[in-house]
Amino acid sequence: MSEPFAFTVKAQDGRARTGAITTPRGVIRTPAFMPVGTGATVKAMFPEDVAATGADVILGNTYHLMLRPGAERIAKLGGLHRFMHWEKPILTDSGGYQVMSLAKLRRITEDGVTFQSHLDGATVHLTPERAIEVQCLLGSDIQMVLDECTPFPATREQAKASLDLSMRWAERSKTAFQKMSVPGQALFGIVQGSVYTDLREESARALIDIGFPGYAVGGLAVGEGQEAMFDMVEVATAVLPVERPRYLMGVGTPEDMLGAIARGIDMFDCVMPTRSGRHGQAFTWAGKLNLRNARYAEDSSPLDPESACPAAQYERAYLHHLMKSGEMLGSMLLTYANVQFYQELMARSREAIAEGCFAQFADDVRRRYREGSETPNGED
Amino acid sequence: MSEPFAFTVKAQDGRARTGAITTPRGVIRTPAFMPVGTGATVKAMFPEDVAATGADVILGNTYHLMLRPGAERIAKLGGLHRFMHWEKPILTDSGGYQVMSLAKLRRITEDGVTFQSHLDGATVHLTPERAIEVQCLLGSDIQMVLDECTPFPATREQAKASLDLSMRWAERSKTAFQKMSVPGQALFGIVQGSVYTDLREESARALIDIGFPGYAVGGLAVGEGQEAMFDMVEVATAVLPVERPRYLMGVGTPEDMLGAIARGIDMFDCVMPTRSGRHGQAFTWAGKLNLRNARYAEDSSPLDPESACPAAQYERAYLHHLMKSGEMLGSMLLTYANVQFYQELMARSREAIAEGCFAQFADDVRRRYREGSETPNGED
Repeated sequence: MSEPFAFTVKAQDGRARTGAITTPRGVIRTPAFMPVGTGATVKAMFPEDVAATGADVILGNTYHLMLRPGAERIAKLGGLHRFMHWEKPILTDSGGYQVMSLAKLRRITEDGVTFQSHLDGATVHLTPERAIEVQCLLGSDIQMVLDECTPFPATREQAKASLDLSMRWAERSKTAFQKMSVPGQALFGIVQGSVYTDLREESARALIDIGFPGYAVGGLAVGEGQEAMFDMVEVATAVLPVERPRYLMGVGTPEDMLGAIARGIDMFDCVMPTRSGRHGQAFTWAGKLNLRNARYAEDSSPLDPESACPAAQYERAYLHHLMKSGEMLGSMLLTYANVQFYQELMARSREAIAEGCFAQFADDVRRRYREGSETPNGED
Repeated sequence: MSEPFAFTVKAQDGRARTGAITTPRGVIRTPAFMPVGTGATVKAMFPEDVAATGADVILGNTYHLMLRPGAERIAKLGGLHRFMHWEKPILTDSGGYQVMSLAKLRRITEDGVTFQSHLDGATVHLTPERAIEVQCLLGSDIQMVLDECTPFPATREQAKASLDLSMRWAERSKTAFQKMSVPGQALFGIVQGSVYTDLREESARALIDIGFPGYAVGGLAVGEGQEAMFDMVEVATAVLPVERPRYLMGVGTPEDMLGAIARGIDMFDCVMPTRSGRHGQAFTWAGKLNLRNARYAEDSSPLDPESACPAAQYERAYLHHLMKSGEMLGSMLLTYANVQFYQELMARSREAIAEGCFAQFADDVRRRYREGSETPNGED
């Protein structure tokens, strides 16, 4: 007998909480950060190293996987977990966000969205039902409803119309999920509403009426600024049920995540640790460093003496050399160290919440990042 | 007390031999393949994985390292071993070959070679003495004399003049090495002479007169074809002392190495397993495969079931997807599997020689490669 999908809050500290999501493929400790495995790989990392960082769950991109290698092909090969050598839980998005940001010639109707693949120009039609079908073919443990990620900025009227469509799609997604999913899998709804308090509340209530085992806050980190993002998170988490996990999509920096945890968020995903790593930026307990900076050319100290990551033990001078030389090993090491930093940040957050000192912990990390971080201006 | 540099032949099978080179940093089992770590990294591999493949020694490129990050800088940072996290032996070339193949505006005089860096155009002067100084700054365990890699084709007169210069440089290299090296380090001479039997013999004898603890055969695999290469290897190994290791530089394919081992060669280096891996080609016990080929799109068999390499257990369909998607993990896995295949080929060669069945073993591998290999024509 496999464990059903469940969520337990183990401790609270203010509005911050720590707990665990139980799934048939393993437990996800919250607050949790999900490394992004866009094309069936967390870029530049061996899957066993992703697990070694402490990641309990990764994110897969429905848009990318349905286009290449194709959901039916992955299903034929035994599902996404087997395909990419990752046995722990996988959350997949619905594809909606990437349709908006990557695809060409998008056209949205009540039925769904029609777009041209950014890879080969093929015309693809994505509906709430097809988004669920694809996620079920992949074998995703936590699936997301298809929604329209409301563009920013949007007028109140635009945001309201977009939200209404997303709520109708959420209902269709749930109906499709009930037909196609297998026991233990879960479907999350997504709160939209741009930067409008009343629309965010309306969206959260509409989703609660439909009923989901978890709720995401979407349409943020799209240019609205940290303050507006925090405001919208607060509005959403005030309405969302405390007994369900809350996932802030596409966020973010260490400071963003700490602020969102303080406002009751349990889950995050972001390309930042992986993408930054490939470009020479390192997240460390001393701040964000730019390893391409000439100041590291003869710096024989380890990347991050405070990290337990094997990659963080490499000397800064060596990492500087690898990045300046365009060597793949530089990307491999910095990605590994960054993903581990994000996991360590979650682990320490969980501990701090359990010990009732989260605000102090978050202040300490914010100070380190304010004082220790470099801007890319120092690049040589 | 560290072990001095020494070589022992443990078994012979025809002209093939198996043995061990002892160095202060560890034993090199022969025949040995040295993965190439051009810019202080075996491209796309973690150093611990290079060791896990069974590699006892890697090669570093003096030309690249002296230009970036610089030999003095590496010395300041504790030497090349510490810099690149590789504690086992390192052999460095002299830089001569890359000056010829990569640098701009080369000018060769009796004193040495002046060239412009391919990185920033800086004028650099490399002499036999400076080549040794650089290798000592790097802390290389096995160093190579500076020579002129005779261009191919070359007339007998050109080859003779080039050879004479290389022999004078070999003598100067040895004198410099005696002043600058530390106990346990070794300097190898390099046989030149293009495709001229008498010149190859003359070169080998001249080097023996100078006296080296090991000898390389250089200036081959430059377009002369496999038959001419094998002929020149035979000529050289017939003259070179049996009690010294023999290194065939820049070679080669599995078939090249098996033929050279049969003619008495003990050491190899080549970019082929690493470079091919980054381009989607896999060396397996079933032949050379091109993972970009559409035939692998739904092939759920492991890359190489006969290999013990963790990377060779990944399914071909997944590797195909990664290579078609340009994902770094594809290069990482194929490089790892290829380097391990090369090491397994050496390990099985050593066993076969010890058991007196090397010719049969080599025939079997050649047959697998003739029948099982793909050409890039199948690319989709």
